[in-house]
Amino acid sequence: MAQKTTLKEFESVYPKLKEALLDHARSYKLPKEQLDWYTKNLEVNPIGGKCNRGMSVPDSVSLLLGKTLSEDEYFHAATLGWMTELLQAFFLVSDDIMDSSITRRGQPCWYRQDGVGMIAINDAFMLEAAIYTLLKKYFKTHPAYVDLIELFHETTFQTEMGQLCDLITAPEDNVDLNNFSLEKYSFIVIYKTAYYSFYLPVALALLQLNLATPKNLKQAEEILIPLGEYFQIQDDYLDNFGDPEFIGKIGTDIKDNKCSWLVNQALAIVTPEQRKVLEENYGRKNDDNEKVVKKLFDELKLEERYLAYEEKVVGEIRARIANIDESEGLKKSIFEAFLAKIYKRTK
Amino acid sequence: MAQKTTLKEFESVYPKLKEALLDHARSYKLPKEQLDWYTKNLEVNPIGGKCNRGMSVPDSVSLLLGKTLSEDEYFHAATLGWMTELLQAFFLVSDDIMDSSITRRGQPCWYRQDGVGMIAINDAFMLEAAIYTLLKKYFKTHPAYVDLIELFHETTFQTEMGQLCDLITAPEDNVDLNNFSLEKYSFIVIYKTAYYSFYLPVALALLQLNLATPKNLKQAEEILIPLGEYFQIQDDYLDNFGDPEFIGKIGTDIKDNKCSWLVNQALAIVTPEQRKVLEENYGRKNDDNEKVVKKLFDELKLEERYLAYEEKVVGEIRARIANIDESEGLKKSIFEAFLAKIYKRTK
Repeated sequence: MAQKTTLKEFESVYPKLKEALLDHARSYKLPKEQLDWYTKNLEVNPIGGKCNRGMSVPDSVSLLLGKTLSEDEYFHAATLGWMTELLQAFFLVSDDIMDSSITRRGQPCWYRQDGVGMIAINDAFMLEAAIYTLLKKYFKTHPAYVDLIELFHETTFQTEMGQLCDLITAPEDNVDLNNFSLEKYSFIVIYKTAYYSFYLPVALALLQLNLATPKNLKQAEEILIPLGEYFQIQDDYLDNFGDPEFIGKIGTDIKDNKCSWLVNQALAIVTPEQRKVLEENYGRKNDDNEKVVKKLFDELKLEERYLAYEEKVVGEIRARIANIDESEGLKKSIFEAFLAKIYKRTK
Repeated sequence: MAQKTTLKEFESVYPKLKEALLDHARSYKLPKEQLDWYTKNLEVNPIGGKCNRGMSVPDSVSLLLGKTLSEDEYFHAATLGWMTELLQAFFLVSDDIMDSSITRRGQPCWYRQDGVGMIAINDAFMLEAAIYTLLKKYFKTHPAYVDLIELFHETTFQTEMGQLCDLITAPEDNVDLNNFSLEKYSFIVIYKTAYYSFYLPVALALLQLNLATPKNLKQAEEILIPLGEYFQIQDDYLDNFGDPEFIGKIGTDIKDNKCSWLVNQALAIVTPEQRKVLEENYGRKNDDNEKVVKKLFDELKLEERYLAYEEKVVGEIRARIANIDESEGLKKSIFEAFLAKIYKRTK
């Protein structure tokens, strides 16, 4: 049966990819100091995460084939997985600048590290460029080479549209709840997160195996986008209602004026008096204001609302998975694996 | 005979491309406020320059064919030209942030415009993404589609390496002339400017006409890279020795600690005493310090040095042009046109 990859196994592929990228830069005779900088960029930014996105490529390929992968199959699947991690690194490095974030994965954000500053913008570009360097090196003769490139282009653009929507809707320094709406929330979540985190890895797995028929891609999209939306809504729920001991951080969505699922649910059901409370307390960098909002979220029974939403959406997703047509090689087990990782998670 | 495009003619193509890009965003139901933002990004940033890079694509196609272009030929050539302008806009928007620039084309830099700030980073990404959206829409069935994509990827990466080298070598806030060298200068100029400004447009023209044989590309590169280097050296020369009335701006390379051709020439020939003068006065935001450096540049006869360099390099480039093998469809006239625009220019 299909075997799940481990973080250790997945990470063991990266040094070879890093060397290929450095060789590419060396072929242009990039001076030593700059090569050292690029090396550090490649060592710090794509590494240190949980690699859930990246690992789901070899996991999906393995489920599609119904077997443990050969060395070559695993290498190519993991390489595609690492491209999703490079795409994520490109976004995280730049998002951290745009959001004025302080730390990332327990370290100062890249742009806040010694001597980096705004050079981080160019470093983000170079992480994005690395995707296409690797595609050219390892997939140039693959029948889906053009489709792979186009998929990365399209996913990148989708994520950029989601980021634009997020940035304009919820600027940290200007609280205006009139900007929020469930429609915008949904757009942000689907485009900023769901496409690159959920749809992309499975679409890559299908492309690697030449199983990316229009029907298979459409079926995958119709399940993975709602699944990604559910994942982010759950993230927003855990930010406020989760146990910091489990999730490993203290939620800051209320203080950060985030356009989160909870505040959008609240806005949909508040009385005029409660809305005033929200207006006066949401998005303030202050414990007292935050407490008032948290109390209002409790009064509005948002936890119950979330749990009801979760049961409903998971029921719908399960029904869609059950209805999958496997005749063109798609496998229900891929989506069951994703759902099992997410449903009722506490971290 | 081949007819040269005008700025007006070239610009008349852009509205159609802008609409295609907006349609693409609309197909994802990007909310109105965000669509308006993207529209403004597409209206402000790629527009208002001289479009020398962009226009050189239809000009080169016209010279290669030895005729005035049909409407369809012109549209496709100009579309490729606009992609070079989008690439440039992507770089300029982000470079201005990295360099803390104040104005661009007579207006505040995009990131300094009202309400933009660091959102400009994402806007830069969306300008880059626009290249591939247009390629897919207008060149998907072109035999050179993959080569066009790969050329843009490679040129983008080359420019990013050049930018990295520039950023690390000449940080505005840390003057250290030991960082400078003619080797690094040459790397920066070739990768940050020459590839995307000179080689890219001609390579695109060759690809459009299916004339991009390895031999033609190599011959083009061997002339256009030295030509681009000469262009940038001339730019550095004009920054100090040019007439501000002609070049339309007052040079600031000395104050900005730029790793320019002049300072590198100076470093190569100074006495220890003169080097001390440079160390103490270069890269200071101060008129008095600047005057001292300008005086030293005069003493070192850098103007004569430049004029001698110019004669030498132009002689070499002319010899290479004369030696071009036109048997695979390349035309000497392309390079003669480039050289004529540059040689002895005063602005």
